[in-house]
Amino acid sequence: MQYQQFGNTYAVRIDLNEDIIESLKKLCEDERIRLGRVEAIGAANHVVLGVYDLQKKEYYPEETNEFMEIISLNGNITAMDGKPYIHLHAALADQRHAIHGGHVLEMRVGATCEMVVTVLDGEVTRQKEAALGINLWKF
Amino acid sequence: MQYQQFGNTYAVRIDLNEDIIESLKKLCEDERIRLGRVEAIGAANHVVLGVYDLQKKEYYPEETNEFMEIISLNGNITAMDGKPYIHLHAALADQRHAIHGGHVLEMRVGATCEMVVTVLDGEVTRQKEAALGINLWKF
Amino acid sequence: MQYQQFGNTYAVRIDLNEDIIESLKKLCEDERIRLGRVEAIGAANHVVLGVYDLQKKEYYPEETNEFMEIISLNGNITAMDGKPYIHLHAALADQRHAIHGGHVLEMRVGATCEMVVTVLDGEVTRQKEAALGINLWKF
Repeated sequence: MQYQQFGNTYAVRIDLNEDIIESLKKLCEDERIRLGRVEAIGAANHVVLGVYDLQKKEYYPEETNEFMEIISLNGNITAMDGKPYIHLHAALADQRHAIHGGHVLEMRVGATCEMVVTVLDGEVTRQKEAALGINLWKF
Repeated sequence: MQYQQFGNTYAVRIDLNEDIIESLKKLCEDERIRLGRVEAIGAANHVVLGVYDLQKKEYYPEETNEFMEIISLNGNITAMDGKPYIHLHAALADQRHAIHGGHVLEMRVGATCEMVVTVLDGEVTRQKEAALGINLWKF
Repeated sequence: MQYQQFGNTYAVRIDLNEDIIESLKKLCEDERIRLGRVEAIGAANHVVLGVYDLQKKEYYPEETNEFMEIISLNGNITAMDGKPYIHLHAALADQRHAIHGGHVLEMRVGATCEMVVTVLDGEVTRQKEAALGINLWKF
């Protein structure tokens, strides 16, 4: 990962075989980012995407291990228990041009990932909502 | 819906079974937002997505009523006839990991919706373009 | 194409049958934009989407020539060899509500394209990475 800051924005290049969520967590820790927006495009060679099951309170995972274009990778950075909390959703296109999408459980860079992180000045934390089993934004 | 303002940006949490377009309209009216960008992720349990037909000048709708991840929800806030005008497009993944997408005609939150609204200082209005049947940005 | 500037942001309307990449290049040249983020929604009537092949170092193209909703169109503006370099990925929904997505090789507006360009104050260039065959961000 390499990055450069432009005002309240970071341009972040995540490199081949690097873990996208771990890289973004490291950026947040190193740069003390507590709240922000994330947008990225690029390519992945491993992804686990989840669709939530409200009854079981767990994600149905779909794992794909081939080169894919990252069509969109969007989400936000908040804080929970004093640590950066990364929430990303993604759409990807595989070699047959089939589309995959969902909540990002795991994602590894397939060539390059070009990410823009826009920092907001403030903090939003998260709190577990028992009925949903989800960590909701808390203001 | 709950929200907090950070400079020119609103972090907006829209809650289970709330209507996303109506919630966003209310935010715009309450906060006097006339121009802005919208990005969100989250989940929906009801969505009507349209693909426009230029000949008939109407949307082909596709309705889905099950829990889905909102992969991306992007668009803009402008003004028409003195009222906020919401234009959103979305991609969603259903429980079988099939992808749905199009122009958002209706969308209801399935667990939570985490939206970021970036306000621009100014105004863009819309004007009906008869040949297309679409309300275009007017500068 | 018509556009208006709001602070560091341009609201850009690209019109029926205009080429999206060429229009964006012209905007960057006319307004001397060297670094920025791009988000758009709208409709297309011609698109060539690529999924990269790391072995052959070329894109597998998929061409579609019908009216489609642009679900998401995201990417960035950087500079290479002193010229604006446009990198966009997109997802689209066709008339049967099937989803297409990938790296944008060509894209032509099908009704209107509502684009927001957020300019960053600085410069990121690109350099060819021989092993990947891709022009990577260089800081």
